[in-house]
Amino acid sequence: MQQHKIEVCFSPALFPYYENREAIVVVVDILRASSAIVTAFMNGVEKIIPVGTLKEAKEYKANGFMVAAERDGIVRDFADFGNSPFNFTPERVGGQVIVYSTTNGTQAIHLASGGYQVLIGAYLNISALAAHIRMQQRDLLVLCAGWKNRFNLEDTLFAGALAEMVLEDDRWYTICDATLGSMDLYRQAGEDMMGYMEKVAQRHRLKKNKLDDVIGYCHQFDRTDRIPVLRGESLVELHAMK
Amino acid sequence: MQQHKIEVCFSPALFPYYENREAIVVVVDILRASSAIVTAFMNGVEKIIPVGTLKEAKEYKANGFMVAAERDGIVRDFADFGNSPFNFTPERVGGQVIVYSTTNGTQAIHLASGGYQVLIGAYLNISALAAHIRMQQRDLLVLCAGWKNRFNLEDTLFAGALAEMVLEDDRWYTICDATLGSMDLYRQAGEDMMGYMEKVAQRHRLKKNKLDDVIGYCHQFDRTDRIPVLRGESLVELHAMK
Repeated sequence: MQQHKIEVCFSPALFPYYENREAIVVVVDILRASSAIVTAFMNGVEKIIPVGTLKEAKEYKANGFMVAAERDGIVRDFADFGNSPFNFTPERVGGQVIVYSTTNGTQAIHLASGGYQVLIGAYLNISALAAHIRMQQRDLLVLCAGWKNRFNLEDTLFAGALAEMVLEDDRWYTICDATLGSMDLYRQAGEDMMGYMEKVAQRHRLKKNKLDDVIGYCHQFDRTDRIPVLRGESLVELHAMK
Repeated sequence: MQQHKIEVCFSPALFPYYENREAIVVVVDILRASSAIVTAFMNGVEKIIPVGTLKEAKEYKANGFMVAAERDGIVRDFADFGNSPFNFTPERVGGQVIVYSTTNGTQAIHLASGGYQVLIGAYLNISALAAHIRMQQRDLLVLCAGWKNRFNLEDTLFAGALAEMVLEDDRWYTICDATLGSMDLYRQAGEDMMGYMEKVAQRHRLKKNKLDDVIGYCHQFDRTDRIPVLRGESLVELHAMK
């Protein structure tokens, strides 16, 4: 039986030491970019163009695109809206193309682009994601967007949750300490994920700007089976490709 | 009351995002460099010169120095001995100057050298280390040597253990996710540290080369109160400086 490995990379800055061009790379930025992107596809967005820099985002805006852009949790003034998943309503995003730039998440997507397939992961689509990975029968690399290249707990917990789901199938294995640690932390957070999240740094940052209303939503499992996938420079819905 | 922060950096590659020139930096490479260095000072070594490259180690050897050098767990043929703490016996190291180069640990020491003070940490000297840090009343940064810039569990558990000890004094605090995660993993490993260590990648690597005999020893608490400190290019015993 051929076995496929699971690895977790805690920071974009560590990506060179985990890069695996044969792997499916799942990019995660739970609070809030990957949760917002999954929400946008749940609500019918046609395409999202992730851009790393605000300069690029501004150029797209000047060319008539709808732009979502934030830095450090704050919406940029030239943008149509910011990074809260609650902004990505069906009325606003249905059938639209959106340009998107955030503090950590969109850069991580570009970094991952050399992988076999790049998917956007969140609790909101976690079971669909796990099911798709198992069908592909490939290595899995979870890339945590982190916070300005630092380790963060919320992405790590998600990595642990996803690894645990995929490992239920014994064609996958892990000998990666980061994956083992993520699963242990996820199990420890356990039933009381919101209680555990009380302490994480990003909750404090969001709360300071009164943006912590999304934390409960971003930790809901399986709100959608849509999976954003990177095709060229854009994110589109995986099943729409077929 | 002035408060001092505790942070943990999981990899030398993440050091730029955690660097704090006002902090005491504790470099840890539990399996096996930092445990070996602490053992050497416990056994009376005069001075250890950590070198990053094998080329430097060879040059020192050619100049008559005693050299300990390994890569990927294997002693280099030009070296007098390798990286097992059991090599650093009183007979061999007492009163000596030793040049030392390892896969991960010695590079991490050089990286940390811009800190206020650079100490070498292991379970073997953990209480002495915690007591010293508390007396200094400064920020603490624990730098995990990791494995070729990847996250490892054994250094992380130690970081959690040390953070927990220092945080017993409420003049220290942490809002660092890596520190919080380390402490949670350390608590989870708990009483059965050896059981927990069964799964870690470095145990498998050591076992493959029949070098895993040191794991129990490297997880013993408080075998010595000696603390190696970086002074210029060399490690010396902290209290010997006074």
